[in-house]
Amino acid sequence: MSAPGVDAARVLADLRELRNRTADERGAQRLCWTDGWLNARAFLEELLAELNLEIERDEAGNLWALLEGRDSGAPALALGSHLDSVPDGGWLDGALGVMAAVGVLRAHAQADTPPARSLAVVDWADEEGARFGRSLFGSSAFSGSLDPAALDGLADEAGMSIARVLSEHGVDVARAPECAARRDGIGQYLELHIEQGPRMDAEGTPVAVVAGCVGIERLRFEFTGQASHAGTTPMAMRRDAALAAAEAALAVERVPIAHGGVATTGELRLTPGIATAVAGEAVLSVDLRHENALDLAGMLAGVRAAAHAVAAARDCEVNEHPVWRIDPTPFDPGLVDLARAACADAVGSGHEITSGALHDAAEVARVLPAAMLFAPSTAGISHAVGEDTPEADLALAIETFGALANRVLEA
Amino acid sequence: MSAPGVDAARVLADLRELRNRTADERGAQRLCWTDGWLNARAFLEELLAELNLEIERDEAGNLWALLEGRDSGAPALALGSHLDSVPDGGWLDGALGVMAAVGVLRAHAQADTPPARSLAVVDWADEEGARFGRSLFGSSAFSGSLDPAALDGLADEAGMSIARVLSEHGVDVARAPECAARRDGIGQYLELHIEQGPRMDAEGTPVAVVAGCVGIERLRFEFTGQASHAGTTPMAMRRDAALAAAEAALAVERVPIAHGGVATTGELRLTPGIATAVAGEAVLSVDLRHENALDLAGMLAGVRAAAHAVAAARDCEVNEHPVWRIDPTPFDPGLVDLARAACADAVGSGHEITSGALHDAAEVARVLPAAMLFAPSTAGISHAVGEDTPEADLALAIETFGALANRVLEA
Repeated sequence: MSAPGVDAARVLADLRELRNRTADERGAQRLCWTDGWLNARAFLEELLAELNLEIERDEAGNLWALLEGRDSGAPALALGSHLDSVPDGGWLDGALGVMAAVGVLRAHAQADTPPARSLAVVDWADEEGARFGRSLFGSSAFSGSLDPAALDGLADEAGMSIARVLSEHGVDVARAPECAARRDGIGQYLELHIEQGPRMDAEGTPVAVVAGCVGIERLRFEFTGQASHAGTTPMAMRRDAALAAAEAALAVERVPIAHGGVATTGELRLTPGIATAVAGEAVLSVDLRHENALDLAGMLAGVRAAAHAVAAARDCEVNEHPVWRIDPTPFDPGLVDLARAACADAVGSGHEITSGALHDAAEVARVLPAAMLFAPSTAGISHAVGEDTPEADLALAIETFGALANRVLEA
Repeated sequence: MSAPGVDAARVLADLRELRNRTADERGAQRLCWTDGWLNARAFLEELLAELNLEIERDEAGNLWALLEGRDSGAPALALGSHLDSVPDGGWLDGALGVMAAVGVLRAHAQADTPPARSLAVVDWADEEGARFGRSLFGSSAFSGSLDPAALDGLADEAGMSIARVLSEHGVDVARAPECAARRDGIGQYLELHIEQGPRMDAEGTPVAVVAGCVGIERLRFEFTGQASHAGTTPMAMRRDAALAAAEAALAVERVPIAHGGVATTGELRLTPGIATAVAGEAVLSVDLRHENALDLAGMLAGVRAAAHAVAAARDCEVNEHPVWRIDPTPFDPGLVDLARAACADAVGSGHEITSGALHDAAEVARVLPAAMLFAPSTAGISHAVGEDTPEADLALAIETFGALANRVLEA
């Protein structure tokens, strides 16, 4: 009895149909807790109904379907990702993993015998957090890292609170963490996603093993100098906060030379911020990412030292405000080994990558063995209408994902 | 017959009364074409009426008063500055020069004999340009450099057009340049102003000769790289417009090392401008000032070369947009000599300074012999409620201004 293979052509057809139903000329419009997202879910439910699978929604709004295995008492293998998108998003981000998971269940549902263990599909709610600024909502409720009290002040651009909007979708924010009870029935979690970066495309890698997700340190530096007249303040008497921030940004860029990882200064705001005044204040955001906790701590120390040295040299003050942090998340070594073997079978090598972005799998990995595969992103473009991957690469990644699921079921 | 001296204590009392009538706890509120400015002008008219002087308003809204001299056919000596302020401005900016001018006319009006030639006071309209973004309105109408057609699109924050607001104040923008006819009756122009910078305060100079006003080159650079994900874009594959702009700003700072002058980068805006994305676009404003035209041209060439080199090294594009420029304005050598002598009489040395800010005198200097004196600004603070000068320095500057006027009348 050979393990059933995924019909990748059908999964691609499903992805195209999803795009037809939920995208416009500006891109994917599947913002969570909106009609576009409900349309995407309705299509998913059609696909699951075709396989005679029952659909359940948990307390956090995650959607689940189960294909019973031969050993119905054994913990299930869960496969999934998220259907929600950012506004004007790409057609593959999240959707690829959900449709591939359905493809795996379809293969087993149409096979002569049920899978050795039960297979679950999960569509996590609000991975992007694009409407209320809280990403990984459904998967963090599942993992126990969601604190409902921390959502209290969150509202969308129209001023609607997250609690009110989610209650209109049948989700009581206070009870969302109760979905964690589902962990008992699940043994492992696998997710296929696009890389959302340029590395695999540049290297010509059609499918890769994800070793884990980076840790992140995000903070904001406020430099304070002295606002003054651009014409009457001699260069030697200036306390220019803009130049302190500029020098700090260039120092932040050099931090990965010693440590690896990535360091970004994408936000820089000046006050008063006009051509005719030396800036008295400058706010610089710094985002540091590394797969290794010690290196991440070293990057943070290096950035802090640079910011303080630059400020002191320019007679400016600097204050530091932590914004957000998360430890690196290595995936389960046993699952990563199986994923490496599946990739080696498919493309001759188990190319390994650390994800610079966070994913639902990073939340699930807090509480269950989890792993991921990546398909490439053409030119690294994501969260935009231009997000794409060559069809041959997508097909190969989908088939490899199915083969990985079979390996895990058989392990 | 000794030349009459200015009663500096009375001028200081007038300045304090002006502050009582037109300032609040946030500073001076004499924004041009508002009630606060009209209140200031009403007080000026009271002071002029006290001297039995007739008041005239010209086509640009400038206010004039004339004290007849013994030789009523000879061209008058005009003295003045501006009563209008920025919002939340300082009590001395502009007001010092107007009240000192009134003080000079008061001394001559109360003397036994009229002055040798006629003396005029002028309060230029809208020096600051704080409401519509067009500074030096009244004095540029007088000098002939105001093009009414160039004012067409200007409106205040409430959307009121400059033409409508000025017509409510009896000024027909199209006819404002007709005030240039007054040039025929005037031989020279003198203005006392605060430095609005920290140099005199740092050097302990209570009054200084202004040799001229700097030339200015103001331009905007737009750097275009590639917006991308802060987590998934390796450092080596980035085209970071924020870092190109930061590096350019630091290069701009170095330009005055070779040339002198001042160079400022007070405006820097990033797109998308968020912590989690490498910036794809950055706009950097550059303001260059120098008293010497050749050096100013050298600064501009240096800044352009640096911006293009930085962009090329980071695989970014750069576009340049001119914003505004003005040539350096040297003041009249003969008047500057007399001013140097008046300062030397008062404080033992004729300390000379070039103004890094523009003044009404720079406009007048296009068409008539003109010169200025500066009083210091404590800590260089101006355009703010904290703007101030020690009373003894103000008194000395006012008396020196009166002595300079006498020297010009007698020359």
